[in-house]
Amino acid sequence: MFEVLKRLLVGRPLRSERLGDTLLPKWLALPVFCSDPISSVAYATEQILLTLALGGAGYLSLSTPVAAGVAIVLIVVVASYRQTCYAYPSGGGAFVVAKENLGETAALTAAAALLVDYVMTVAVSVVSGVVAIISAFPVLAPHAVAISVGFVAVIALANLRGVKESGRTFAIPTYAFIALTFLLFAVAAVRGLGGGLPQASTAGLPVHATEQVGGLATVFLGLRAFASGCTALTGVEAISNGVPAFRKPKSHNAALTLVMMGTIAVVMFGGLTALAVSLNARAMPDGNPSVISQVAASVFGHGSALFLLFQAATAGILILAANTAFNGFPGLASILARERYLPRQLHNRGDRLVFSNGILLLAAFAVLLIIGFDANIDSLIQLYIIGVFTSFTLSQAGMVVHWRRVLTQEQDPVRRRKVRGSQAINAFGAVLTGAVLVVVFATKVVHGAWLAVLAMVVLFLVMRAISRYYRWFEAEVATTRAVQTLPPTVHALVLVSRLHQPALRALAFAKATRPDRLEAVTVASEDEETRQLQREWERRGVQVPLVVLSSPYRDVSKPILEHVARVRGRDPRGLVSVFIPEYVVSRWWQQLLHNQSALRLKARLLFTRGVVVVNVPFHLGAEDQGWLTPEAQQDLPGAGVR
Amino acid sequence: MFEVLKRLLVGRPLRSERLGDTLLPKWLALPVFCSDPISSVAYATEQILLTLALGGAGYLSLSTPVAAGVAIVLIVVVASYRQTCYAYPSGGGAFVVAKENLGETAALTAAAALLVDYVMTVAVSVVSGVVAIISAFPVLAPHAVAISVGFVAVIALANLRGVKESGRTFAIPTYAFIALTFLLFAVAAVRGLGGGLPQASTAGLPVHATEQVGGLATVFLGLRAFASGCTALTGVEAISNGVPAFRKPKSHNAALTLVMMGTIAVVMFGGLTALAVSLNARAMPDGNPSVISQVAASVFGHGSALFLLFQAATAGILILAANTAFNGFPGLASILARERYLPRQLHNRGDRLVFSNGILLLAAFAVLLIIGFDANIDSLIQLYIIGVFTSFTLSQAGMVVHWRRVLTQEQDPVRRRKVRGSQAINAFGAVLTGAVLVVVFATKVVHGAWLAVLAMVVLFLVMRAISRYYRWFEAEVATTRAVQTLPPTVHALVLVSRLHQPALRALAFAKATRPDRLEAVTVASEDEETRQLQREWERRGVQVPLVVLSSPYRDVSKPILEHVARVRGRDPRGLVSVFIPEYVVSRWWQQLLHNQSALRLKARLLFTRGVVVVNVPFHLGAEDQGWLTPEAQQDLPGAGVR
Repeated sequence: MFEVLKRLLVGRPLRSERLGDTLLPKWLALPVFCSDPISSVAYATEQILLTLALGGAGYLSLSTPVAAGVAIVLIVVVASYRQTCYAYPSGGGAFVVAKENLGETAALTAAAALLVDYVMTVAVSVVSGVVAIISAFPVLAPHAVAISVGFVAVIALANLRGVKESGRTFAIPTYAFIALTFLLFAVAAVRGLGGGLPQASTAGLPVHATEQVGGLATVFLGLRAFASGCTALTGVEAISNGVPAFRKPKSHNAALTLVMMGTIAVVMFGGLTALAVSLNARAMPDGNPSVISQVAASVFGHGSALFLLFQAATAGILILAANTAFNGFPGLASILARERYLPRQLHNRGDRLVFSNGILLLAAFAVLLIIGFDANIDSLIQLYIIGVFTSFTLSQAGMVVHWRRVLTQEQDPVRRRKVRGSQAINAFGAVLTGAVLVVVFATKVVHGAWLAVLAMVVLFLVMRAISRYYRWFEAEVATTRAVQTLPPTVHALVLVSRLHQPALRALAFAKATRPDRLEAVTVASEDEETRQLQREWERRGVQVPLVVLSSPYRDVSKPILEHVARVRGRDPRGLVSVFIPEYVVSRWWQQLLHNQSALRLKARLLFTRGVVVVNVPFHLGAEDQGWLTPEAQQDLPGAGVR
Repeated sequence: MFEVLKRLLVGRPLRSERLGDTLLPKWLALPVFCSDPISSVAYATEQILLTLALGGAGYLSLSTPVAAGVAIVLIVVVASYRQTCYAYPSGGGAFVVAKENLGETAALTAAAALLVDYVMTVAVSVVSGVVAIISAFPVLAPHAVAISVGFVAVIALANLRGVKESGRTFAIPTYAFIALTFLLFAVAAVRGLGGGLPQASTAGLPVHATEQVGGLATVFLGLRAFASGCTALTGVEAISNGVPAFRKPKSHNAALTLVMMGTIAVVMFGGLTALAVSLNARAMPDGNPSVISQVAASVFGHGSALFLLFQAATAGILILAANTAFNGFPGLASILARERYLPRQLHNRGDRLVFSNGILLLAAFAVLLIIGFDANIDSLIQLYIIGVFTSFTLSQAGMVVHWRRVLTQEQDPVRRRKVRGSQAINAFGAVLTGAVLVVVFATKVVHGAWLAVLAMVVLFLVMRAISRYYRWFEAEVATTRAVQTLPPTVHALVLVSRLHQPALRALAFAKATRPDRLEAVTVASEDEETRQLQREWERRGVQVPLVVLSSPYRDVSKPILEHVARVRGRDPRGLVSVFIPEYVVSRWWQQLLHNQSALRLKARLLFTRGVVVVNVPFHLGAEDQGWLTPEAQQDLPGAGVR
């Protein structure tokens, strides 16, 4: 039944050879990898205006230079990562680049930062999409958490079905949002030329300064607005991570998609900010109406069909931005698992050839975050971006080192010049993103980002501990450490409580393994049963000695463990194999009707050294018990155990 | 840690030989077995008055004859069970008597009725005790459920510590209640002779008829009051069940305790009812103040120290009445388990030689009932008594048959006359309790008793099903059905993923069992790993063939199960033994870092016929791995698997 449900939800399993078929064409790669950065134009402008408004109406004039700054950073980062796509065709996420060029500590820092930020991305983007929906249908407000969790589940499910399928599903809203935004620009241009664009609905509202400004405070406010605007950059690194998912030529296609994404994002961000400034849109503290919806209302007309469509597309892409993280997180986790920094299970591909465990883990953490923060976007957004810029900085710095290494081997002056150019781009990117990181940290840490930093530190330490464990494990199991030989002696113990078929079967199999010594062991917890067993033993003439262990406290495990210890004490180099007859029932409730002492005993024997446990199952209700055929029964009437 | 907590709560385990030490002297047996019937005098009078008041003030005069009727039934039942104590010295509960004399259906009916009623007893008595506490401290009212559950837990714990210990703990409140009641009678007699007894506080209150009376309705009301008063009889059968728990001469001591109990209960019930009638106490619909407390207030003086002490003793014995069920239920369940009508685990004696599983089961059901009925005494009490009288009737009827059988073998006329006398007593008891059962059923079934009846029917069917299963099981495992022989061939498969120490160890042990065929099996889920394994295999010159199973869907279990099926198909009479190398880690989180595919595979192999699973554990971090000593390593440098 579980299987049927899984098939319905996830689809039929795919053969490993079909991994090639899941490669993405560029038109699908764009929505898969870029829904996050493209969606952020829906709120980046708003974040800038909101922060600047803290200083009063006069400061709103800073929005144009601040937005320009953000656009410049975006262009530089895209240019930087373009280099990475070519330099690391097998996937050049911050972890890989930092590991190769800066060492383990930097790599794990970048990885921890990215993993934490992917979780934040899912939570923030889904919740902000739900906020957009709720501002249209306020009646849904009490169910914000449930709706958000539901969306996370749907996105996770789509991703479990496979990257390509999720890309197809999510392509429509992404392209719809892009198309509608460009349509918005066209309409605004036409109507604006005719002088017919009305001001934003909030244009006349007064703006009161709520923070002290002047001197350094002014600079700080500008920087804080800039840091808020930098949310537009989240998810830019996803493509460089995902180069192997592209069709050939992988690097080229990835770099092209990256440039496409950068161009679209910069044009949309710049256009929307320019429109917002010229229409005098004000950012409302509660985000309702949002700046982007004010712009759309002015251009398309409030309540028009196009306006409503634009609103729906905005909500859609905000929620789908989470999809970028659902591609980034499992991929990065699988690389970390391959390198033994995370549990191996994260490296297994599921039925649909995606890293299912990583998808489930990301969804679980995001749901925890949404529930923990009660789907409150203002608190969640404070945890954001620190991770992104940490990994940006480390990745670009790693690239600088990478090019330096290339330079030592490259003699051709033309190529050397090209490499130097790449190095300069990455160096500038590293310095710029490093500076942004400092700004983001300084302006956000007291507002809640400390929690994200704490999560990164914890994750960093956990990954180091896991790595240490795996290294120890490899040393433990290494064949160079000791050479395996046959055990000098094997002492077989068969546990019996009654002389019934399951016990006889276990005895027979124990005999078949030809141990050096063989004895049957029973625990005398009820005198009457034990006497009956001994009588039966003699009556049938079983040729195996029966050891009766007394159990004054009616416990089954302890006397057997003590007996095993005695046997091992007599022959420390020997091996003890314990044969346990086991009933296999066909219905769960039948299991309740049998004592479970064998289960407890097995668990404890597993932890006893020099002991091998052999389960000899007896299938209740089965005519065919394995080697026991009707002919065999006729051959041996009443022969007992031979 | 769990072990330490268990020792603290339950005490040190007792040796089985000490079962004799736990036998009860009469003075302890009385509180252990009789707290239920003695406690019911605290509310039986009230139930009668409450029911009669439905007919109006005039009907209160019926209380004396109704109470007399209840007292007569009590005396008859005690006399009947006295016979049972002598006839069944090894415990003559309704189940045993009915089984021997009336057959399985009657016996299971009686057993189901009693088991259900024991659960009711615990719920009703604890909740009524809590009601008494709450009427003194109304602030506790919102916590009635939690307090009730807490008391159930405490009583269960005391019983887990052992019958004798629980008897000691519970003796004080029982004797205190008895002593204070007799003191009450003495004071009432002295003060009454002086004419100084004030009327009950509710004596002047008007009583309004709320039900139609006259003709048959009058009779019905009287019968209903009688049925309500019969709650005084619950728990009377406990002694006959528990004869083996008495010191020798068991039957005699048990019969004596029974008579003691009967005398005390009749005197207390009669005295309290007489006082209540003569003081004109009225039963309040909400039970506050209760009739017994009104009587005590009149006699001792409201608010006096004796009055408060009496109230505390009443609450105490009401709660402890549950203890009688805690002795009855586990004992009966263990007999039913021994006879294979209930799971075997209920027949195991725990650390303190009590039937711990039965105690826990009873507590769990009672807690469910208390929570389900929200600790509402009025609803709970309706479910009560049907079970008790069902088992009374069946037990007495069984005794009649028993004596008839004795008569066929007895020739001595003196003894025959004695047996005839016993038979007459039991026959009268059967008829009387049967009549009461009809009355109880007729008057209570619509008020909620149908739920109790339903529970009994379900339990009856479950016990029949369990019995059928165990009989089928015995036939399945019986050695007469087939004779066990050695398997003609043993085909050993060793699962390997890498050629590390755990795998080599499994290979070595598999070789040591000298199978007819031996092969190593690996699943090719990752090409690179498989190639590496094959290279290593050749490099080390392992002499065992390595079978590589392809796994297009990356699943480990399925290819192996299919391979096992192929091997079995080639040799259906042979046995397949599957050796699974297993890492044993010392910390739980280390387990998370290893793939758990072996666990799933083991579970599925267990259900495959003709397969034996051998776990070969490898203890990570242990220098001593069993047969592998440092000398053995020196003996065989680089020898590989021999």
